[in-house]
Amino acid sequence: MPGDSPFDRHTALVIIDVQDAMDSPKFAGRNNQNLVPRLQGVIERWRKLGWPVYFVADDDANPDSPYHPGQPGNDFKAELTPIDGEQVVRKTTGSAFLGTDLEQRLKRAGHQTLVVGGFQTNKCVEAMVRVARDLGFSVYVLADGTATVGQSDRRGRWWQAEDVHNLALANMESDTTHVIDVAELLTKVPQ
Amino acid sequence: MPGDSPFDRHTALVIIDVQDAMDSPKFAGRNNQNLVPRLQGVIERWRKLGWPVYFVADDDANPDSPYHPGQPGNDFKAELTPIDGEQVVRKTTGSAFLGTDLEQRLKRAGHQTLVVGGFQTNKCVEAMVRVARDLGFSVYVLADGTATVGQSDRRGRWWQAEDVHNLALANMESDTTHVIDVAELLTKVPQ
Repeated sequence: MPGDSPFDRHTALVIIDVQDAMDSPKFAGRNNQNLVPRLQGVIERWRKLGWPVYFVADDDANPDSPYHPGQPGNDFKAELTPIDGEQVVRKTTGSAFLGTDLEQRLKRAGHQTLVVGGFQTNKCVEAMVRVARDLGFSVYVLADGTATVGQSDRRGRWWQAEDVHNLALANMESDTTHVIDVAELLTKVPQ
Repeated sequence: MPGDSPFDRHTALVIIDVQDAMDSPKFAGRNNQNLVPRLQGVIERWRKLGWPVYFVADDDANPDSPYHPGQPGNDFKAELTPIDGEQVVRKTTGSAFLGTDLEQRLKRAGHQTLVVGGFQTNKCVEAMVRVARDLGFSVYVLADGTATVGQSDRRGRWWQAEDVHNLALANMESDTTHVIDVAELLTKVPQ
């Protein structure tokens, strides 16, 4: 690992909305089908190192949402479920920083740098990352540790999931927000 | 005006980052060249009705930014400058709700519905609108009262300003965030 790595034991891994609802028909056609195993690899490394892991769960208030509490989709995916000592943040908002104490938890624990993955790139991931930047965090978004679905715009044009994903990543990049792949991340973190 | 209009004297018009910096070479090629006269039309109506107008100004901390305080670009555009009694919110963040008291000002004044225009659709406008939604505001984003510039993604693909703009508007739409044109807005507001 290069000595100038930005990642250390104060770097919080934040996994957003990776719940069974991801596999519902509502989100058919998502890009990046390897999202879950890739994030598993990151979590395993973080756990081995004893570095902080935060799980954000979407408790969508809309009863028709597969993420709604009480729906089976509300459960964390089996492969990405918190273990003892890991933090869980439940939200009804888009950004995990609104209506929660995530900011206070991170700052109190001295976690100034965040590595962020999850679902959906242009929705809850982007909402969280934009606010993280405004709150002064340094953020690394996992390009292949995030995913989304296609959508149409008001002109009726259909945007493929991969296009929506790539433009969302471009929107997030800034002086303090970086976009990287999981493989690159893991070369910069101790074994 | 239909009786079911969502707009009344508690609807705040919020103009974001419409400063002389918009015309700097950094933002060459922006779409929607009629942004300023369209927003002027909206402001004139709001002023005539005595409805609340908020101006958000970007005080970009980067000294190389044309928006940086002390740069000529930091000035509000002459056509869209606050008058006595109108609110000004200065920010160094992306979202006008972070690091400011905008939320408190709006809520204290009972302004629960926001009409939002300005620059750039996918940057400070979208950042503000996403947080507004999470804070419980009802939001109307002006499709032709916002604008942006083109950008490239990490794959090197160039996205035209109009595409970036339209996908940002699509990202913002939700159960409580609506995208409308200025002409449509003005039909729903008293003369």
